[in-house]
Amino acid sequence: MTRTHEEVRHPPESQGAELTPVTAARGVEDALKIIAGRWKLVILFHLFGGKVLRFSDLERAIPAISQKMLIQQLRQLEGDGMVRRIIHPQVPPKVEYALTSWGQSLCPALDALLKWGGRRESMAASAQAAEPS
Amino acid sequence: MTRTHEEVRHPPESQGAELTPVTAARGVEDALKIIAGRWKLVILFHLFGGKVLRFSDLERAIPAISQKMLIQQLRQLEGDGMVRRIIHPQVPPKVEYALTSWGQSLCPALDALLKWGGRRESMAASAQAAEPS
Repeated sequence: MTRTHEEVRHPPESQGAELTPVTAARGVEDALKIIAGRWKLVILFHLFGGKVLRFSDLERAIPAISQKMLIQQLRQLEGDGMVRRIIHPQVPPKVEYALTSWGQSLCPALDALLKWGGRRESMAASAQAAEPS
Repeated sequence: MTRTHEEVRHPPESQGAELTPVTAARGVEDALKIIAGRWKLVILFHLFGGKVLRFSDLERAIPAISQKMLIQQLRQLEGDGMVRRIIHPQVPPKVEYALTSWGQSLCPALDALLKWGGRRESMAASAQAAEPS
């Protein structure tokens, strides 16, 4: 195990202890950079839940994406440690895509974001109702 | 309470039921649009925890931001229902900024993203250790 960063760099389970607003914001931005990309979220949502898909399955599932773009997005997700390629040594070679455990572990955070977005209208409505007229 | 959208539009507490990969991805993208903006996350992390700050407090807390940019980011956050302005009717008028309850409720989702990002190195290391050499 190598340590290339200062000790404060790695607060995995803390509730934001040691974090300042600036470092917290940067941490969130770094996380978001990994999923930024026109098709990455759609690809991830196809793979969440332990799904294992062939390239052609993904092509069929996301008809709007070009082959070139799908290759690029998968390579970036693989390079970032989100997606793993499973190569079956057979003829012709069979290649499948699945999430790494770290990739899979993003699911609850995205789910929380999704629910938060979904609460917008109901919370705005109740805030207005609570205001004195 | 007004209903301007179709019924499926509003799954606040469901675990992604009724969602397809495409609609889930779009929901996350919509949520992320609200916090996209060079300084929005930093401003939010300054206001999380029920903090009430004056404009000058925020200026002091984020010295790198220009006054014009701070005004713009606060207006956008206010327009999106994240931040509320509290105007005290006194001379000179005192204006404070705080999160709406919906804005505050984003905190756990960002915290989950932050922790997920922080787990990257440890999970990659344990995955490599688990691989046959």
